[in-house]
Formats: sequence, structure tokens, C-alpha cells
Amino acid sequence: MSDSSVSRRRLFGYAGAAGLGGVAGVVAGRASAANGEAPVAQDVVGRTHSPYGEQQAGIFTPKTMTGELVAFDLAPDTDRAALGRLLRAWTGDIVALMTGRPPAGDFAPDMAQAAVSLTVLVGFGPRVFELEGLAGRRPAGFQDIPPMAHDRLQDRWSGGDLLAWVSADDATSVAHAVRRLSTDAAPFASVRWRQRGFWRPLDQTGAPVTGRNLFGQVDGSANPTGDLLRETVLSTDDWLAGGTQLVVRRIEMNLDTWDEATRSRQEASVGRDLPEGAPLSGGVEHDDVDLAATVDGSPVIALDAHARVSHPSQNSGRRMLRRGLNYTAEEWTDAGLVETSGLIFSAFQANIADQFIPVQRSLDQLDALNEWTTAIGSAVFAIPPGFSEGGWIGEGLLA
Amino acid sequence: MSDSSVSRRRLFGYAGAAGLGGVAGVVAGRASAANGEAPVAQDVVGRTHSPYGEQQAGIFTPKTMTGELVAFDLAPDTDRAALGRLLRAWTGDIVALMTGRPPAGDFAPDMAQAAVSLTVLVGFGPRVFELEGLAGRRPAGFQDIPPMAHDRLQDRWSGGDLLAWVSADDATSVAHAVRRLSTDAAPFASVRWRQRGFWRPLDQTGAPVTGRNLFGQVDGSANPTGDLLRETVLSTDDWLAGGTQLVVRRIEMNLDTWDEATRSRQEASVGRDLPEGAPLSGGVEHDDVDLAATVDGSPVIALDAHARVSHPSQNSGRRMLRRGLNYTAEEWTDAGLVETSGLIFSAFQANIADQFIPVQRSLDQLDALNEWTTAIGSAVFAIPPGFSEGGWIGEGLLA
Ligand code: HEM
Ligand code: HEM
Repeated sequence: MSDSSVSRRRLFGYAGAAGLGGVAGVVAGRASAANGEAPVAQDVVGRTHSPYGEQQAGIFTPKTMTGELVAFDLAPDTDRAALGRLLRAWTGDIVALMTGRPPAGDFAPDMAQAAVSLTVLVGFGPRVFELEGLAGRRPAGFQDIPPMAHDRLQDRWSGGDLLAWVSADDATSVAHAVRRLSTDAAPFASVRWRQRGFWRPLDQTGAPVTGRNLFGQVDGSANPTGDLLRETVLSTDDWLAGGTQLVVRRIEMNLDTWDEATRSRQEASVGRDLPEGAPLSGGVEHDDVDLAATVDGSPVIALDAHARVSHPSQNSGRRMLRRGLNYTAEEWTDAGLVETSGLIFSAFQANIADQFIPVQRSLDQLDALNEWTTAIGSAVFAIPPGFSEGGWIGEGLLA
Repeated sequence: MSDSSVSRRRLFGYAGAAGLGGVAGVVAGRASAANGEAPVAQDVVGRTHSPYGEQQAGIFTPKTMTGELVAFDLAPDTDRAALGRLLRAWTGDIVALMTGRPPAGDFAPDMAQAAVSLTVLVGFGPRVFELEGLAGRRPAGFQDIPPMAHDRLQDRWSGGDLLAWVSADDATSVAHAVRRLSTDAAPFASVRWRQRGFWRPLDQTGAPVTGRNLFGQVDGSANPTGDLLRETVLSTDDWLAGGTQLVVRRIEMNLDTWDEATRSRQEASVGRDLPEGAPLSGGVEHDDVDLAATVDGSPVIALDAHARVSHPSQNSGRRMLRRGLNYTAEEWTDAGLVETSGLIFSAFQANIADQFIPVQRSLDQLDALNEWTTAIGSAVFAIPPGFSEGGWIGEGLLA
């Protein structure tokens, strides 16, 4: 997926990548982008992404309207060889689904469609590295997130031995792909959790934008781009080289108490404004926050502002690529039906222990957003590199 | 929404309306349609529908990528006057949301967007007609669906005193609208159930199509169009004149056993083929099934075929406008996590008792699809007519 990243980054620079939430620099070429023009809707929706490439599709490809993250538990008798068989079958499914052909043995072949921006990203959970023959292959820094003071983790949204993250323009295409993948997984693994999310990556003129979470915040503005993005995300470690490590956190957002806060308090809690996502220290959306700026001797970006506490400069240069999806859900509790909203927060980085965990620890201690946000699920996956024709996902680990 | 229906129907005819699932004949004009050309993507997505018209938007407007049906229970002290206050507030919300402006007092004003095909359809459940002063106003034929032999109804998906059905191109816009409507409803009514669905109304070339349910069937082909559509759907009864009656059935579809059936058995169960939705008796998608056709003395369309049993000719000419959405969901049962798929079946007709119930009874007795489908929720709503500037939804009943 990233062959054209360097030249594209040169064409684009930071500001030019704005429209695609900061990742346009490594998106496979389309007419508008290749010509150095501003990104257009066709860069984001109606795409047929190649299943082949140095990276799996679904990391650097643009965020889509809709997606599902499906985690699986391995059956007790699924060993390394069986896992390899599943991954070979899944690779065949994914090549077919992404190119709009029905996978072998598909029961609903009429539902396969190209040009729905479909991607399937596959990853391995920690227990895979407890299988016989894989004990020494756990990537450096790949580990579960330690408990945080603000966590209220539920087992039903946490963990998992395998991940299939399906993204597309429409949920019918996603449902079809998930059905195919879970049917083929059935002899080897069963669904542990399934998280459905959505995003709006276009504005009302149809132009690509970063998009908003359910607090109404522009979310994704400060994601790294270009070479910095690749350094941030891509592992160089053994079989994972060219792959990455993924953290998925299901984070509930309390809209009721959020709505009670004044708009200026809401903006102060992040350090960016609500209309555009521009830093409170001035500038436009993709500008960096100026943490040194003061007014009357006080910092413009508050000491507990989310964008300060998570900022690379406050975390020894540690970065990640965030690619969250919104969700809404109900829970039937003793008190009756409760409406919930939140973010399927996800972050890609080369090394979870080095990059994600220290930032998460700082946020757990200091972040103003903690007042309204609570992690209720947590999972980590090692994301193998991409594959080329004839290859398969995870081959470097399982072959 | 329907001012141009007659001239549009003349331009289009039956075949021309095909692209929009049979409802293009009453869709507000866009360039391609007004010129009598084939419908294009822009007829279906990226629309800004007018909130004003003879009918509420969301009946004759094209099906959208995503939608939520939200049912509310009235609080014990919500009387006729209070319900009127809520409906006035909702009308203001809806005008703003549909035109891309933040509703008064919106806490997330930055999320309002035009051109996301947003519609909000409002309806009244049966208990509204038990409120003081409304006892005599229950529309003729407006009643709950009697128990059917194949039903496995759950309370949590059934009933409701009020409905807000939000449709749009993307689920973030839907979530924002639902949040606004339920916040404004809070003093008067609480959420009873919320059903999230999705549809793909475009093919891979971006052309409008009828779309498929999760059995892979083209679903909606035989919907009435033009004058027949208006006669089928629109009430002429007292305050409901220009409005309609809606049945919502949450119908689980057993994909596991469906997948085990041969393709020819799957096609025989409906009487239409899977690739195109064409009648097994010949012709193309929007052609009528020929129930008299025989091969070797046997009917081509089986006696228990869904399209025969539900056909107007078998039901004294009774018709309905179907506008279903797909869903997937999980249930945590004693046996663990169970994946479910289904259809949020919905049907508009002038009179539920006269039109829907007899057809549903025939299907309950004879329909081949019963092997794989089970209604798990049921609700009915009286859908008041549309409104013009200065008016409000339900004024004819509540003012
Ligand atoms: C529901 C929970 C969260 C919400 C609503 C949220 C929201 C935001 C917003 C609005 C921004 C500023 C715009 C942008 O750059 O995207 C931001 C930035 C950021 N967030 Fe979060 N975030 C959440 C959770 C997290 C978590 C769990 C982490 C990592 C542990 C994280 C790490 C970051 C980072 C690294 C930045 C960029 C900081 C910078 O370089 O300026 N966020 N977030
Ligand atoms: C999950 C349940 C259901 C599925 C999968 C389903 C599927 C279909 C399909 C594939 C068709 C043929 C194409 C078309 O005209 O749309 C059809 C037609 C039809 N269905 Fe259903 N249906 C379901 C439930 C119902 C229910 C509950 C009713 C009414 C009580 C109903 C009434 C009709 C009618 C009236 C037609 C058109 C028949 C004709 O004029 O040819 N369906 N349905």
C-alpha cells in the first residue's frame, strides 16, 4: 500500500495531507492526489484498494464510513499449523473480497462488490505467542496494557487471540465480509467480541476531512504524516518488520456530563477549538499546539489539556497513529435501558511498551478528558506486514 | 415531498423508477431525474431533502446507507398538551437538522451538516390514542399486529408510544440527530428501543439500485410506484389524511441454515433469482412474477414462494411499501455469544388492518421463508402527514 508514499509525501507536505486526516501521504494514488490537487471524495469513498503491498490495507488507507472490529478466541486444539491454515484461507477471502469477487465457497456470492473501499486488517493477540513453536516470537514491546486508574474494563470488550478489522463504505459489505471470515474461522476460532463503528470522513461539500467524534471534536488532526508516520507505525522487528502493533480501547464518553460543560471548558480540556480543531494557541487545524504560549502568565493550552498531556514533546517524542471509530450502544441494566456513546479508540505504533503505554499512563494521571471518558475494553494485536500475490498474511510467523 | 410525483411518474414509468427501488416516481427532483435520465448516485446520496411537504420525509425519499429507528415510551404525566409541546420542539429540531443547521440549544452544533440525506420520520404508537382527549382519534385500521404462529416476540424490540426514524448517508449524522431528539424528549418520554440498520442503495458503479438483504436477495423490487404507490400508502382518514400507517417488524434471519440450502431452493423460496432479483417465470428485476406460468404442469413460482403468497393477486389486491434495513447483532446467552442477522422490516400502508395483517397472516401460514425467518419484535405507528413552514408534525391531531 505504501510504494508511492515518499513521492506522495513530497507532493503533499503536512498541510496538503490535511483532508485525509493526516494519512494522505501514504494513500495509494488517485487522480486528484497524483496531480498534487486537493483530495476529493473519490480519494476516500468508492475505492478498490489493492490487497497486496508492504503493509496490510486498513492502516494507511483512508478511514471509511463504517467498520467492524471482530476478535476471535482460538479453539483449544488450534495449533500453529491450524492457525496457518486459517490465515491462508483468510488471505484468499480477503483478496477476493477486496477486489469484488466472491471468496471460494461463498454462500452469498451476489453480495461481493468492488469499489466499496473494503479493507480487512488481520492481527494476532498475545496468546498466539504461547502456542507451541511460537513462544520465542512475541515481538518486543508487544503486551497487554497494564491496568489504569480510570479503567472500568469489561471482559466482553477485552482481549482476543485474533483480529479481523473490516472497513468499507457501507455496512452491508462489512457484514458480508465478517460473515465470510467468521464462517471460515469457525473450525479454528470463535467470535469473542464484535465492535461496530462509524466515521464521517467527508464534509457537506463532499471534500475529505479529518472527521468528528461524538463529543463533536475534530479527532485525528495531529496524526503524524510522511516519513514520521512510517517511523512511528512500522516495526523493524524480525517477522513483524513492515507490520505494526495495534491497541484497541473501547472508551465510553459521557455525553450527558459533557453537554453540561461550557463550550470554553470543553475546548480547554483538549487545547483545540470545536469548530475547526484549531489549536487554542492559534493557527489552523493541522498546526501543532504551542505549549509555550501564555496569556497573562498562564499557559494558553492548560496543563491538563489532552493535547498537551499526550503531546510528543511531553512524552520523549513518543507518537502513534490514531484511527478511531464512533459507536453508540444500549445496555439493559437493573436501572433499565441505558444509552451509551463512545470511541473505538485504536492506535498503531511500532512498539506498544515504548510508545503507547507511557502516553496512556500520563493521560491516566493528568488528562482533563478523564472526567468524561472511561475505558471499558482493551485489546492488543500484532499486525503482520502485507503480502504479495501468492503470499499470505502471517506467513513470516507461521510458515 | 410529493408535489412533483405525477409529472415525475409520467417521465419515469415503472422501469425508469427501477434504480431507486421503485420509489423514484415520488422522489423530489434532481437534475438527472428531472431530465428523464437514468437515476445517478446523486439522486440517492449527498441529498438535502426539504423538511416541508405533503408527506414527512423518510417515506418516499430514497433509502439511505444507514438509519436508526428509535421508539419512546411516554412518561406517565405526559398528556396531550405536553405531547404537543414535544412535537413542536421536535419539528424545530428536524427542520434544523435536515437543512444542516444546529437545532436550538444543540450541544454539538459543529456536527450539523447539510447534504447527508438526513430525514426524520415521526410516528405515534397506539397508547397515544388512550390519552385524554384523543380517545376518539385512533385512525381506522390502526392496531397492533395479532400474534402469529411463527412469532417469537421480545418485549425489548416491541411496542412504543412514539417513533423517530432517522435516516442519513452516515451514522455519525444519525447519532447526532438521535441524541438531539432524545435529549429534547427526555422530559416527556424515554427511549424504549433503538434499532440500527443499514442498506446499500448503490451498485459498484455508483448507480442507484434496489439493494440486498443479508440473505443476498434483492429486496424491494416489487414495491408499487406512481399513483399506485400513493394509493397504497397514503391515508385519507381525518387527521391522518396525507399520512400513513407503519409496521416495524424485527425479523431474525438464520444465515446458518440458509447457507445450507441449495441456491435453487433459496431462489424457489421467494420466486425470484439471486443474481438480479428477476422473476423465476422470466423477465428482469422489476417485472411482475407470472404466477400462472407452469413447467411440466407444475407452477414455476412455487405455491409457498414468498412472492406468490404475498402477491397482491393472492391478497385481494392488498399492497404495501416495504422499506427494510439490514442489521447484525450479538446476544450474550447462557450458551455464550450468539451472532444474529436480520431485517428491520418496515411497511407503509394506508390501513394496517386492511392491508398488512391479511398479508402477514397468509405468510405466517404458507411462506417458504418461514423456515429461516422469525419475527422477534413488532410495533406500529401512525405517521402524521407532512408540514409546511410554521406548522408542526402532528398538529392536526394535537393542536
Ligand atoms: C474517548 C477518548 C479520547 C478522545 C475523545 C480523544 C480526543 C482527542 C482530540 C480531540 C485530540 C486533538 C485532535 C487530534 O490531534 O486528533 C486528540 C489528540 C491526541 N490524542 Fe486523544 N482522545 C481520546 C483518547 C486518547 C487516548 C486513549 C490516547 C492514547 C493513549 C490519545 C492520544 C492522543 C494523542 C497522541 C493526540 C495528539 C496530541 C498532539 O500531538 O497534539 N487519545 N485526542
Ligand atoms: C426477513 C423477512 C423477509 C424477507 C427476507 C423478505 C424478502 C423478500 C424478497 C426477496 C422479495 C422479492 C423482491 C421484492 O419484491 O422485494 C419480497 C417481496 C415481498 N415481500 Fe417480503 N420478505 C420478508 C418479510 C416480509 C413480510 C413480513 C411481509 C409482509 C407481511 C412481506 C411482504 C412482501 C411483499 C408484499 C412482497 C412483494 C410481492 C410481489 O408483489 O411480488 N415480506 N420479500
